[in-house]
Amino acid sequence: MSARGGWLAVVGTGPGDPAWMTPETAAILAEATDLVGYKPYLDRVASAGQTYHASDNREEMDRAGLALDLAAEGRRVAVVSGGDPGVFAMAAAVWEALEIAPHARWGSVTVTVAPGVSAMQAVAARAGAPLGNDFCAISLSDNLKPWPVILKRLRLAAEADFAMAFYNPISRARPWQLGEALALLREWRAAETPVVIGTAVGRADEEVTLTTLAEADPTMADMRSLVIVGASTTRLLRRPNGQAIVYTPRFYREGGE
Amino acid sequence: MSARGGWLAVVGTGPGDPAWMTPETAAILAEATDLVGYKPYLDRVASAGQTYHASDNREEMDRAGLALDLAAEGRRVAVVSGGDPGVFAMAAAVWEALEIAPHARWGSVTVTVAPGVSAMQAVAARAGAPLGNDFCAISLSDNLKPWPVILKRLRLAAEADFAMAFYNPISRARPWQLGEALALLREWRAAETPVVIGTAVGRADEEVTLTTLAEADPTMADMRSLVIVGASTTRLLRRPNGQAIVYTPRFYREGGE
Repeated sequence: MSARGGWLAVVGTGPGDPAWMTPETAAILAEATDLVGYKPYLDRVASAGQTYHASDNREEMDRAGLALDLAAEGRRVAVVSGGDPGVFAMAAAVWEALEIAPHARWGSVTVTVAPGVSAMQAVAARAGAPLGNDFCAISLSDNLKPWPVILKRLRLAAEADFAMAFYNPISRARPWQLGEALALLREWRAAETPVVIGTAVGRADEEVTLTTLAEADPTMADMRSLVIVGASTTRLLRRPNGQAIVYTPRFYREGGE
Repeated sequence: MSARGGWLAVVGTGPGDPAWMTPETAAILAEATDLVGYKPYLDRVASAGQTYHASDNREEMDRAGLALDLAAEGRRVAVVSGGDPGVFAMAAAVWEALEIAPHARWGSVTVTVAPGVSAMQAVAARAGAPLGNDFCAISLSDNLKPWPVILKRLRLAAEADFAMAFYNPISRARPWQLGEALALLREWRAAETPVVIGTAVGRADEEVTLTTLAEADPTMADMRSLVIVGASTTRLLRRPNGQAIVYTPRFYREGGE
């Protein structure tokens, strides 16, 4: 606790279904006097008597600074992300603010992070277990990272034969990145490699598409999607009861046999 | 639901602290008639009136088969993993059993997976946000995967400049793997690269060590540990209030500057 009783906790709601939010996060939200975050996330955790500080999704550093200011004033502040705040979300932004543009008034603020269920885990659970063996998670957004760095990572991840989860696969401002990523992977992985596209998972309009690397098309995804591309060992299993799932076995034999 | 009302749900308790178990998982556990899993995980979720099927941690396929048999008999079965059942845990084992050694009696069993908080997320939250940018998760166990495959993945992940989370870093049966992995990474990453070793996170004897690639030693870890090695951009931040954290910024500049 800081001298005046304020604190800042970075939390994640999970990917949409309230049943995926941890009790720890629920308790922090209940104790907070102020909630700071992107408006759709705040709308998920609305409760009476709290002050809301909603913002656009592209102003992470400003949001972190506002949250630190409020905590320094003695407020109990929850910074609210969507899935896990430590995975492509607000936790890093708060530490960046503290390191890159620190204010003396922030020095004594207690800052903690609470883990949560991330989108890739919810999509993986719906699909079967595509992340059941070694995998990587890559943001396809080139807002903060040069696109050549992303391409290099994709190529090396393909060579390493990781299953891959793509965050921020597509948006109006970034319409071509997912198509280019899939095109690169087609040079490395078989046409029938399973691909999972999970959109708005955990919400009423949830959609989970099981497809293949050959058939996957960027139009199947939107800004609410998370995309998983299988490793060479990832399999599509059709069960006698009609259920189709995608999973990556725990064992590994060279060549994916 | 299967014809006789049985089902199988693969769930994870989260990494130790009950406050990290999702409400969805708690509800499934409450509805289950039978719990199947490694004994320490079952002990975490003990409740009255349920049948326990505890087993050794190395018999995943037998455990999956037992769970499917029980569900086929009309029981409501929860297969219980530690963190997220989809990340190096029981979900893949259940699908393997269904694909590799299927029994006709399993054909109509409803099988679902519920996501959970995985160990790497809890350790990352305690440490700061080391997985705040692109990262990979690798099991260092060579029980089911040849060691040369693991070395190749480590080398390519290093070249890709991923932060890395290592599951199953060390055990009595696998004493040298972590040391060899760290030795390989020292050829690729700077000596001062942050390393986080989280042991028994979320439990009474939790220990989180922040160290560097030069100083990291396998004796700092045990079979309850998860190890995170930073990317070239991962930073150690010491705050004026004495807090030390490790985080990976969202932005990326070539060379890690």
